[in-house]
Amino acid sequence: MPELVNRAFRLAARPEGVPSSEHWALTTEPVPEPGEGQVCVRVLYISLDPAMRGWIADRESYVAPVQIDEVMRAIAVGEVVSSRVEGFEPGDHVSGLLGVQEYVSVDGRALTKLEGDRSQLPLRLGALGMPGMTAYFGLLDIGRPEPGQTVVVSGAAGGVGHLVGQIARIKGARSVGIAGGQEKCRYLTEDLGFDAAIDYKSENVGASLREHCPDGIDVYFDNVGGETLDAALARLARHARVVICGAISQYNNPDDIAGPKNYLALLVRHATMTGFVVTDYVSRWPEGAREMAGWLQSGELKTHEHVVKGLEGFPEALLMLFTGENSGKLVLQVAG
Amino acid sequence: MPELVNRAFRLAARPEGVPSSEHWALTTEPVPEPGEGQVCVRVLYISLDPAMRGWIADRESYVAPVQIDEVMRAIAVGEVVSSRVEGFEPGDHVSGLLGVQEYVSVDGRALTKLEGDRSQLPLRLGALGMPGMTAYFGLLDIGRPEPGQTVVVSGAAGGVGHLVGQIARIKGARSVGIAGGQEKCRYLTEDLGFDAAIDYKSENVGASLREHCPDGIDVYFDNVGGETLDAALARLARHARVVICGAISQYNNPDDIAGPKNYLALLVRHATMTGFVVTDYVSRWPEGAREMAGWLQSGELKTHEHVVKGLEGFPEALLMLFTGENSGKLVLQVAG
Repeated sequence: MPELVNRAFRLAARPEGVPSSEHWALTTEPVPEPGEGQVCVRVLYISLDPAMRGWIADRESYVAPVQIDEVMRAIAVGEVVSSRVEGFEPGDHVSGLLGVQEYVSVDGRALTKLEGDRSQLPLRLGALGMPGMTAYFGLLDIGRPEPGQTVVVSGAAGGVGHLVGQIARIKGARSVGIAGGQEKCRYLTEDLGFDAAIDYKSENVGASLREHCPDGIDVYFDNVGGETLDAALARLARHARVVICGAISQYNNPDDIAGPKNYLALLVRHATMTGFVVTDYVSRWPEGAREMAGWLQSGELKTHEHVVKGLEGFPEALLMLFTGENSGKLVLQVAG
Repeated sequence: MPELVNRAFRLAARPEGVPSSEHWALTTEPVPEPGEGQVCVRVLYISLDPAMRGWIADRESYVAPVQIDEVMRAIAVGEVVSSRVEGFEPGDHVSGLLGVQEYVSVDGRALTKLEGDRSQLPLRLGALGMPGMTAYFGLLDIGRPEPGQTVVVSGAAGGVGHLVGQIARIKGARSVGIAGGQEKCRYLTEDLGFDAAIDYKSENVGASLREHCPDGIDVYFDNVGGETLDAALARLARHARVVICGAISQYNNPDDIAGPKNYLALLVRHATMTGFVVTDYVSRWPEGAREMAGWLQSGELKTHEHVVKGLEGFPEALLMLFTGENSGKLVLQVAG
């Protein structure tokens, strides 16, 4: 194997608020040969997810925080360059926690081999990957919408949100999305078939929820927290299910989280609020991926990857998640 | 029937914060003869409950608010004075929403006839009444503690809380109570058999929860809200269940509820927070009351009514719920 050079983004400092370029170091080093049991992978596409903000905070969470000087954690897809594991051949496509970098040698047991052609790889980070499984199991297993019920999702144009509303519709529920900006709202209703969309930047969310959810909200799938969560709680139907999937409005202010003032609506409405972490469902991913793939093939489910090109664009691309600039699943294309 | 005179507490003004004597009017009027289908009842014991604060707030809740000039709503037990309903005879004991007053003529269908002797009546407002059923179904149906798990209850010396901790213990769980003052804490551990008690007035609740719940909290039964709820959320075990039964720390400040800043612990801990209203379980009350009565008889469950005498003491007695002066179930004895 010729000597390969890896460029990697490492955590240089922990951000207090929004992470910016000063919190990252772009380092260059030779790619180590894969050891016994390892596979060397060239990274092609990296998934940029709101959860990344949590991974760089120095606090206990469902996974250990990324350490200073460590390569930034990321889910990615790539192709095998060389392998010391039976079953992985150069040219194979794989996914795993490959990190924000160009090459990595990892334990073969941490990789999933992917079938299908190269053009399908971004989907493996979206509708058929973690965001897709988050939407699928979070909505169907925790939210449990029934036909005719009303599902509201925040961050509706994002990587998870745009799938949640469509799955709700496929299952016979009404879907209402909350997103930022008229273009995103148009995209939700006209391109994706949401029943209604609320532009939180120009509308009063509470008033619009009253208008679009006359019988209340049966399932609220929350990606943003803050005032949006409070507005939804105020509009819950009896026995509503609130799925807490994320809180992107709060991630950059971890020491002063705004708790939901309207949480007593849970009592008044006999409702439930549940935290959802997709890793609880790993054993059921094949089931979810199979159903999602079927809907994609039939055209019932549409997906959209927002692709930013070039590893060096990582710090800026990550910010798009917090400013709401991306529409659909945000992916960083490193090569390929 | 000789002309009877009724004294009643009516809502005179809606309190902004803590309700005080100026918000009540003590009125006197003749007791109307019962109409067709009605029963005239002499009120003996009135249940004073935190939920009363919600009933006098001018906001939507699980029941309509008490109107100005209306007799204050209250669950009570009494004896039949005269009846125009078959099956109710003078001297029978009954329970129902009789109001904060001495006599009332009500529709017979709104009354429950009680067996047992007069000395058992306060129990019908406590362990065998709404607080008992709240503790029983809230803990066992929503909290679902398993043997060996840790149950934490706030407002632990109150009408519901002192039962929750004991039911947890009977079911094989560890029970930790949070209450105000050393005497209450002594009562919980020494008299009622709680495994530990935390005095929120003199201890750091978060530090004490760490000490007494080394493996985290599996079930948190919340009666108080505010900082106590946040401290408990910070200490949840994986897959914990949080039962929101009340929020007495917040009831007198309804326009500025402190939302739980630590609600994202639900996500990190894969946990659920559910609002509990006992009226959802009306059809299963006989089952709950039967089991509670058995535990009372066997001595496994101890209960304690804090009885205040005299109708005119209502405004002041109600305040005890908010200052935490009562220990056990607070009952106003009107007669008998």
